[in-house]
Amino acid sequence: MSKILIFGHQSPDTDAITSAITFSHLQNELGKETEPVALGKTTAETQYALDYFEVEAPRVITTAADETPEVMLVDHNEAQQSVSDIDKVKVLAVVDHHRIANFQTANPLYYRAEPVGCTNTIILKLYKENNVEVPKHIAGLMLSAIISDTLLFKSPTCTAEDEKAAKELAEIADIDIEAYGKDLLKAGADTSSKNADQILNDDAKNFPMGDLTVRIGQVNVVDVDEILERKQELLDEMAAQSESNKLDLFILVTTNVLESDSVALVYGEEKAQVAEAFNKEMKDDTLYLEGVVSRKKQVVPQLTEQFS
Amino acid sequence: MSKILIFGHQSPDTDAITSAITFSHLQNELGKETEPVALGKTTAETQYALDYFEVEAPRVITTAADETPEVMLVDHNEAQQSVSDIDKVKVLAVVDHHRIANFQTANPLYYRAEPVGCTNTIILKLYKENNVEVPKHIAGLMLSAIISDTLLFKSPTCTAEDEKAAKELAEIADIDIEAYGKDLLKAGADTSSKNADQILNDDAKNFPMGDLTVRIGQVNVVDVDEILERKQELLDEMAAQSESNKLDLFILVTTNVLESDSVALVYGEEKAQVAEAFNKEMKDDTLYLEGVVSRKKQVVPQLTEQFS
Repeated sequence: MSKILIFGHQSPDTDAITSAITFSHLQNELGKETEPVALGKTTAETQYALDYFEVEAPRVITTAADETPEVMLVDHNEAQQSVSDIDKVKVLAVVDHHRIANFQTANPLYYRAEPVGCTNTIILKLYKENNVEVPKHIAGLMLSAIISDTLLFKSPTCTAEDEKAAKELAEIADIDIEAYGKDLLKAGADTSSKNADQILNDDAKNFPMGDLTVRIGQVNVVDVDEILERKQELLDEMAAQSESNKLDLFILVTTNVLESDSVALVYGEEKAQVAEAFNKEMKDDTLYLEGVVSRKKQVVPQLTEQFS
Repeated sequence: MSKILIFGHQSPDTDAITSAITFSHLQNELGKETEPVALGKTTAETQYALDYFEVEAPRVITTAADETPEVMLVDHNEAQQSVSDIDKVKVLAVVDHHRIANFQTANPLYYRAEPVGCTNTIILKLYKENNVEVPKHIAGLMLSAIISDTLLFKSPTCTAEDEKAAKELAEIADIDIEAYGKDLLKAGADTSSKNADQILNDDAKNFPMGDLTVRIGQVNVVDVDEILERKQELLDEMAAQSESNKLDLFILVTTNVLESDSVALVYGEEKAQVAEAFNKEMKDDTLYLEGVVSRKKQVVPQLTEQFS
């Protein structure tokens, strides 16, 4: 029989990649035959975590139905963030911490979502509820995801449960959270070797908002000027990709992970509405978003409201 | 501050009514201010359970936004089964055991679905996970819901977890499951005092299938002839309601709770497709469905497939 495939969202970040690995390990311990896979290449940040805990990167797929009739989703539920043939497979389970939208099934399923900062915080609970031990390397990957998703607990998405989980996991993995965390975030914050496409799309998602398709990428840096110096190159690439992928709006959120502020570059006919959504003045297609670090809590809801 | 309202689906059955009560008790124990309400009158079966455990029926609402900005859903998620203004309130939590469809949020939320036979089986887990004691009357209501949803463990929707939960709850509530269960099911199986509208709609839900709106009612009996003798009266009422409520198909599933078989009455232009979905011959708008007792597992998926 074919294995059940488990995967996170497209343009996978550290939580998307590692939650597939950690949830697959749990399912296998519980007697299922599953394999973690990825819907895109690992980022430098994720690769840092995988190398540190000596775990191989999952293989990359774009479709699932050619391999298996059954899948489990982690760290996402929206169809446009998933495999392209999600409507052709049966979703047995979802573990997620995002809003629910553009998701439906024909049958009852296991669905576990909680409004916490990281999917792996929920997966740690599932290990406990099922009395399955968390091995050291799995604990290390879970911890990496929590650090990544909460920007070392500074994001407004971070909850007390995420911090508590991180402390428990750091014990198991024998890791100094602050020191390891800064190294992990810095590993993902180097944009010098990235081309415009990588900066825009390494962590990007499409959101249907009203009648529009809005793509929002996010890139972490330790100095926003790295990105602002390349503004024209990035806007040109956003224009080209908006044309070829039929996007109505393309937004790149550049987040300074040390200072917890962001700058947004905006391309598209409706760009004035983006400024309006944040009640800010747009200058040269650029919006300064003080205190904004979370796409999920501080960008998507505001835009969803604006375009609904 | 206004209370958070908690409710199950329209045309509430015993699980819909009691899960609102039992989940609200849990939330209140955890420090939230919530009130269980209902989206319709209690059935004779539910009233039997409420009377037995001396609990008042929740008040009936049809809209929520005029009372509260925040709600929690139990035993359903689909918008057309909920309050009419579900899009105007924030859904904080869902506990359910159905497919997910026609449901979306702007923000992350708590969502707990498991493919078990009864919402209260999941709610019992939540009591345990939160170390909240289950009082005797709450245990009695939870047990009643499990008996009702699984037809005393005979439905294919019934899982080992439902049976285990029922046994635990029977201990707490000090109840003989078989004896109480038969009395409960019989209390809900008397159709003699019901008019056609009550038979059709006391436990009915609308399902969008392809481009069609399909309404499926289910009524429990101890003798299907009670219903078949009233076929013309029921078909006339189905025709009238299909016209006024813009339904494409109206199906009444009459289930013999002692013999675990069903008979379906079908009204609508596409009725031949219903026969095709079950690979049966239709005679006088009537389909005999041997071994069928579960709308969720043995009716909805087959029709969803047929019309997709």
